[in-house]
Amino acid sequence: MRVAVLHGPNLDLLGRRDPAQYGDVTLVEIDRRLSEGAERRGIDLIAFQSNHEGVLIDWIRATMDGVDGWLVNPAALGHTSYALRDALEAAGKPFVEVHLSNVLAREPFRGRSVLAEIAVGVVMGFRAESYLLALDGLLAHLASCGRADE
Amino acid sequence: MRVAVLHGPNLDLLGRRDPAQYGDVTLVEIDRRLSEGAERRGIDLIAFQSNHEGVLIDWIRATMDGVDGWLVNPAALGHTSYALRDALEAAGKPFVEVHLSNVLAREPFRGRSVLAEIAVGVVMGFRAESYLLALDGLLAHLASCGRADE
Amino acid sequence: MRVAVLHGPNLDLLGRRDPAQYGDVTLVEIDRRLSEGAERRGIDLIAFQSNHEGVLIDWIRATMDGVDGWLVNPAALGHTSYALRDALEAAGKPFVEVHLSNVLAREPFRGRSVLAEIAVGVVMGFRAESYLLALDGLLAHLASCGRADE
Amino acid sequence: MRVAVLHGPNLDLLGRRDPAQYGDVTLVEIDRRLSEGAERRGIDLIAFQSNHEGVLIDWIRATMDGVDGWLVNPAALGHTSYALRDALEAAGKPFVEVHLSNVLAREPFRGRSVLAEIAVGVVMGFRAESYLLALDGLLAHLASCGRADE
Amino acid sequence: MRVAVLHGPNLDLLGRRDPAQYGDVTLVEIDRRLSEGAERRGIDLIAFQSNHEGVLIDWIRATMDGVDGWLVNPAALGHTSYALRDALEAAGKPFVEVHLSNVLAREPFRGRSVLAEIAVGVVMGFRAESYLLALDGLLAHLASCGRADE
Amino acid sequence: MRVAVLHGPNLDLLGRRDPAQYGDVTLVEIDRRLSEGAERRGIDLIAFQSNHEGVLIDWIRATMDGVDGWLVNPAALGHTSYALRDALEAAGKPFVEVHLSNVLAREPFRGRSVLAEIAVGVVMGFRAESYLLALDGLLAHLASCGRADE
Amino acid sequence: MRVAVLHGPNLDLLGRRDPAQYGDVTLVEIDRRLSEGAERRGIDLIAFQSNHEGVLIDWIRATMDGVDGWLVNPAALGHTSYALRDALEAAGKPFVEVHLSNVLAREPFRGRSVLAEIAVGVVMGFRAESYLLALDGLLAHLASCGRADE
Amino acid sequence: MRVAVLHGPNLDLLGRRDPAQYGDVTLVEIDRRLSEGAERRGIDLIAFQSNHEGVLIDWIRATMDGVDGWLVNPAALGHTSYALRDALEAAGKPFVEVHLSNVLAREPFRGRSVLAEIAVGVVMGFRAESYLLALDGLLAHLASCGRADE
Amino acid sequence: MRVAVLHGPNLDLLGRRDPAQYGDVTLVEIDRRLSEGAERRGIDLIAFQSNHEGVLIDWIRATMDGVDGWLVNPAALGHTSYALRDALEAAGKPFVEVHLSNVLAREPFRGRSVLAEIAVGVVMGFRAESYLLALDGLLAHLASCGRADE
Amino acid sequence: MRVAVLHGPNLDLLGRRDPAQYGDVTLVEIDRRLSEGAERRGIDLIAFQSNHEGVLIDWIRATMDGVDGWLVNPAALGHTSYALRDALEAAGKPFVEVHLSNVLAREPFRGRSVLAEIAVGVVMGFRAESYLLALDGLLAHLASCGRADE
Amino acid sequence: MRVAVLHGPNLDLLGRRDPAQYGDVTLVEIDRRLSEGAERRGIDLIAFQSNHEGVLIDWIRATMDGVDGWLVNPAALGHTSYALRDALEAAGKPFVEVHLSNVLAREPFRGRSVLAEIAVGVVMGFRAESYLLALDGLLAHLASCGRADE
Amino acid sequence: MRVAVLHGPNLDLLGRRDPAQYGDVTLVEIDRRLSEGAERRGIDLIAFQSNHEGVLIDWIRATMDGVDGWLVNPAALGHTSYALRDALEAAGKPFVEVHLSNVLAREPFRGRSVLAEIAVGVVMGFRAESYLLALDGLLAHLASCGRADE
Repeated sequence: MRVAVLHGPNLDLLGRRDPAQYGDVTLVEIDRRLSEGAERRGIDLIAFQSNHEGVLIDWIRATMDGVDGWLVNPAALGHTSYALRDALEAAGKPFVEVHLSNVLAREPFRGRSVLAEIAVGVVMGFRAESYLLALDGLLAHLASCGRADE
Repeated sequence: MRVAVLHGPNLDLLGRRDPAQYGDVTLVEIDRRLSEGAERRGIDLIAFQSNHEGVLIDWIRATMDGVDGWLVNPAALGHTSYALRDALEAAGKPFVEVHLSNVLAREPFRGRSVLAEIAVGVVMGFRAESYLLALDGLLAHLASCGRADE
Repeated sequence: MRVAVLHGPNLDLLGRRDPAQYGDVTLVEIDRRLSEGAERRGIDLIAFQSNHEGVLIDWIRATMDGVDGWLVNPAALGHTSYALRDALEAAGKPFVEVHLSNVLAREPFRGRSVLAEIAVGVVMGFRAESYLLALDGLLAHLASCGRADE
Repeated sequence: MRVAVLHGPNLDLLGRRDPAQYGDVTLVEIDRRLSEGAERRGIDLIAFQSNHEGVLIDWIRATMDGVDGWLVNPAALGHTSYALRDALEAAGKPFVEVHLSNVLAREPFRGRSVLAEIAVGVVMGFRAESYLLALDGLLAHLASCGRADE
Repeated sequence: MRVAVLHGPNLDLLGRRDPAQYGDVTLVEIDRRLSEGAERRGIDLIAFQSNHEGVLIDWIRATMDGVDGWLVNPAALGHTSYALRDALEAAGKPFVEVHLSNVLAREPFRGRSVLAEIAVGVVMGFRAESYLLALDGLLAHLASCGRADE
Repeated sequence: MRVAVLHGPNLDLLGRRDPAQYGDVTLVEIDRRLSEGAERRGIDLIAFQSNHEGVLIDWIRATMDGVDGWLVNPAALGHTSYALRDALEAAGKPFVEVHLSNVLAREPFRGRSVLAEIAVGVVMGFRAESYLLALDGLLAHLASCGRADE
Repeated sequence: MRVAVLHGPNLDLLGRRDPAQYGDVTLVEIDRRLSEGAERRGIDLIAFQSNHEGVLIDWIRATMDGVDGWLVNPAALGHTSYALRDALEAAGKPFVEVHLSNVLAREPFRGRSVLAEIAVGVVMGFRAESYLLALDGLLAHLASCGRADE
Repeated sequence: MRVAVLHGPNLDLLGRRDPAQYGDVTLVEIDRRLSEGAERRGIDLIAFQSNHEGVLIDWIRATMDGVDGWLVNPAALGHTSYALRDALEAAGKPFVEVHLSNVLAREPFRGRSVLAEIAVGVVMGFRAESYLLALDGLLAHLASCGRADE
Repeated sequence: MRVAVLHGPNLDLLGRRDPAQYGDVTLVEIDRRLSEGAERRGIDLIAFQSNHEGVLIDWIRATMDGVDGWLVNPAALGHTSYALRDALEAAGKPFVEVHLSNVLAREPFRGRSVLAEIAVGVVMGFRAESYLLALDGLLAHLASCGRADE
Repeated sequence: MRVAVLHGPNLDLLGRRDPAQYGDVTLVEIDRRLSEGAERRGIDLIAFQSNHEGVLIDWIRATMDGVDGWLVNPAALGHTSYALRDALEAAGKPFVEVHLSNVLAREPFRGRSVLAEIAVGVVMGFRAESYLLALDGLLAHLASCGRADE
Repeated sequence: MRVAVLHGPNLDLLGRRDPAQYGDVTLVEIDRRLSEGAERRGIDLIAFQSNHEGVLIDWIRATMDGVDGWLVNPAALGHTSYALRDALEAAGKPFVEVHLSNVLAREPFRGRSVLAEIAVGVVMGFRAESYLLALDGLLAHLASCGRADE
Repeated sequence: MRVAVLHGPNLDLLGRRDPAQYGDVTLVEIDRRLSEGAERRGIDLIAFQSNHEGVLIDWIRATMDGVDGWLVNPAALGHTSYALRDALEAAGKPFVEVHLSNVLAREPFRGRSVLAEIAVGVVMGFRAESYLLALDGLLAHLASCGRADE
């Protein structure tokens, strides 16, 4: 089983950007923890960050046939990118939307996601831990689908 | 460490109500899994369900001094109950909002929560598993606060 | 065949409250007329009034397996109570929404019902007679469903 | 006592148009049932259908002095026709708004009626039966007005 | 195969009304071109213009069983006429919405069509040519449906 | 010089309909006064009332080449009839919008006119006198245009 | 009988400001024409212009007991001045709202008047002539009130 | 003369909840001050707090015939509880809405009260003192009504 | 201790303007009662009324260094005057907003105050008594600030 | 004559993505058909797809001096990309907006295009055929402009 | 060349009012700097502050024929004063809108200007420096107009 | 001291695109003037244009540690790009938003900037000169911060 992790714009600045909202962990550290967590659970995990909407979509296209699901932290693209939404919908694999902070407790524009409507679920507010919870949520979802398919 | 779980109106009907949205697990089963999960993590867990806004608020009042945090599935009360919000805010302990289904993928009114703005975080969409993920999220939050307090 | 009647908050004051809108019949009298009407139609009828949202939901839970349908006058709860809506939806029996007055001809907030969307139909404006018309409407609906099931 | 029934645009297609919403009864059959029902209740009943707003208004004008009240199914005209509203208001007789389907459970535009605010009451959702319930509602209203006038 | 063309209010004034928006072709000329185009494609074409909503609906009723689809230029009725929408929906044949001008580039009210939601497609902005493109679009649609039915 | 007067739906009921708003003058009497007023001013005046949007548009079409301007009391059609607006715009003659009552002091929907934006001016609130004032306004407008054309 | 005319801010610039909207007549000329018109009708007329909301209100206060009605061209104050509205309402005399241009055909903000709701009527779009028409409208209104009082 | 005081949800936590908004006085202390204040003014005062909407309504019902007016601090119920509004309206006695904090200076949702429209008046922002001011306001109102009744 | 009272536009007409809303007390009488009340409480009180926004602001400027707080009845200026708000904010002394009537029970525009957000509190609905209650509220506020400063 | 075709994000997935909306034709096949169609019409056609807004804009810049017009299927970028709009506007050549599906019949966000306002026209709903119809529409537009230029 | 500077309400309190937003420079100091800056640039500069909308308009009227352009800091009047807008528009000289603070980063109401739409440009956020930048901007604008006129 | 200048999409077309709005200066010329202006002021200036949101963000990332502040003309990205906003916020250096035209005087969508809320200030409407004014504004801001830091 393989899971792909998508980090949207400006997440490469984690650890530097507003620690009160995002904590002081870097993206490298998050990816390291995710890899370890994935290994412990016996699954393959690949991760990718970009500040370019188009590059993110191309990467979805490039990897979509080889993964079982996605963790997606769309960052600011989540508020407006119907193109990212269409890419994920076309990819046809389940995904979980992840946020480090509780976006509903911040500026109103941050509470709007154009992706969430087609996600399996959403996890937000637990900083770096959000990704691992989302991973467990995705695996639970895949497991229950598996059971349903038998 | 002790965590309290609050189940809002109609959650006593789980397993019977719309399995496509909520799965076929009963609330009894969810509480059993939560108890086991809590035990494994070495923490105390109490749970409560009511269809009465006032009873839920009274229970928050009765237990708030003895718990370290809450898991709250407000169900339909989440859309309108500022009283529940005030109760949780006055209780002064961190809480995580939990939903079995991805409420952002259903009727528009379900996407509105008057509690989320003051929650630590939100977990939704993983059916019964949502509660366990929320528990892990709450524990991670409490741990990081503990570290910050030292 | 059994039909349950649900009277929401403040309907116990009928006959005393604003007769221009509600007429001068009391709730006791309405229930008496409904009982007679039900008897004439050869069906069982039970009725219940409460000012507590939670009590109404509990009563729906307690009786839902023994009734074929509901007449629901949600009174002020109809404008906001998604919990009542969820309870009726989970109960899985058809219901008719009833209002004594024509709520669309009064203050704007009275024209909004969060229940109507999942009702079989709505009857409003005929004072006490509304309930009897709604009963006939429910019976006609149940009859046509019966025919469809054969 | 005489009651006039007004059927708005496209109701001549009943029985053919979307049976899931409207049932499979034709307008001819509805009018026949209404006539029988009226006869049983000892009242005179006339009915009229048109796809033309202006023709409906002219007919209201032509008959308004000879009737005691109306049953009005405005169909799609109910969403926009202030002219029909003015005509009914100017006619000065009580009317009941009737809908075959529960318009509040369909597309949002169907839930808006510019007539309802000046109606005695509304009956919706019981298919052909809606008309007979509305007739009973109108008669009850006329009876209570009669008592009030004495 | 037969196609019906519906021209809404004021289109009889083409050639006279605001040539900057509508070009200087008359409706007679448009119908002539459509007839020639239809003949070249081996299909039957009938066309009708009226300033009366009700007459347009009656004509839909009168012809609907003998045509395979419609070209509809609702003109100003497109912004408000749910009755026309219901008539076309009840007719049960595919239709294409046509506009001479690009209505999205004019007054805001012109950009709103209550018909488009149930149309096969929309063609706007090519003046008289819009009709011929719409005809080709309708034929392509009918052809693909035909293939699907086999 | 010739002026045409257009009376919209339900104005044939003047004198009977709500005298508090409209006064007790009949439409016949208004037309008589307008004729006398026109005669005194040495101009030709024709008037027309219909409850049919389409008939009003047809009449505009039939008379538009022989008149110098219009007085238009659209009644309820003024709130929604873009078709009437298009007809008057296409006719290409100046018109004044007239209302018997002050529509801005009544129900909110009455304050909205889709015609006014393309009118020369508006006169409302003076009951039957509104028409004569509008006539004088139109004549003043035509006179000033005449001066401008020289 | 005495009528007071109130000219709001910037009307002292008439003849200089945007002649396409306001014509090229000056305020002095308008007042002169109004005086002549009033004299011909045998009534007393006083007029006043100010750019100060407070001064206009003070003037209303100073003159209100000696006049039978007002002509009010609030200019830009009409969009926001609830204080002017309160002053006119408190003065307790009928007034007509006057505009030189058709404010509904210009920028959207110009179409909003907070005074119109309590006016007898409105006249707009006839440039300087608007005032004289409004005067006639006010006199007609006063005359009909006089008749009603007898 | 007797006055009843109604304290809504979470007011039992006063003194503990957010002292910056509510001050550090407890509800017990407020009730004590109110009792003393009432005694000084020679009137009877009863007070009640509940977190249950239904219990508050029942209490209104139980006491309404024995009191001359109410002080109502609806707390969070004020934003949504039309049932509480209906209960107070049906009770038919004057009431004053009271808030400890200036709710218009806090989160937007706190500024909305569905009760205020039917209250005699509102007092907010003076912490515990708000209740005593409201009591004086209510007494002044009752006194002026008394004078009006003589 | 000195308190300044600000009366906005049209309050000089009290006693004459709409007694159903404002009572029949004059402003002179209100100021006399306020003076007596202030004297009894051992404080200095100055009062001022103007119909001019600018004059009110100038007066705030002129007196702000010599007063401890304000009672402000902005009347119609409260709905729109951000300049008055800025003046009060810049003055830097606490103020209480006062209304004679319950503005939330009247036309919707009256319920909007741009000042309330920066006020200590609001008192409305007790006619002339509102000022005295507001004075007591302001004094209580100043006393509690005094205690906090020690 | 040369025409450029712009395909927005995710259109490279055609044939794989939701065939119910888009049909089962691939983008390669669409481009092939367009090339053949263009050849038959004796014109040059170039086509380009990208998931990157910036790359699409760069390509517009690179080709704009060598083409006579565009066919633009903006896909999800059409809902938000003012940058694409500005690029097309700056390019100064006519373009037709194309959609495979009838976007007005799907999720509300799909019905909003920020490009359409500056397009010559729009063609939607005919799947792959939409492009060819749009090509014919563009050619007709260019031809009529050519005639106008002579 | 002469430039006039208009300072709106409460700007006379600069240096005293909220230094975090406005800095600690007084209006006298700003005018002194502006005068020096103007002198260095060889132009005449006059400045004026008032808290009265009407006085500001009168001053515009009094000076408009002798100036080449304006710097306008409308302060709170910018949010609502259409009268000021009309005065500036009627004056017919270019003006630049100036704000000391970045009004888009403060309360939402501060971000709305009814003047900006007719300004040459806007400068905000640089405290006292904003005026000098605006002066340079105005001079650049006048220079480019001058070149265009030659 | 070093300042970076960011030019958003389509600004490379300056001089060619709509000269009435943007003037006829090219971007090369603007950058040349900015360089000269910077040199005169003794500061280092770098500039960059891209049509790619992601490339702009990457460039912010690449240069942010070496600059003291930014001039940002986001062009069309300013209306929607929360990613650009986040990048600038994370960069943690002050920036000024610049527009060539007065965007508040054009299409409504151009008046909305998601960046302005976190900018130091905004300069718009002076064509190429806007950049130099913004540079001066930024320098003034940096100077005042410097003074504050000492």
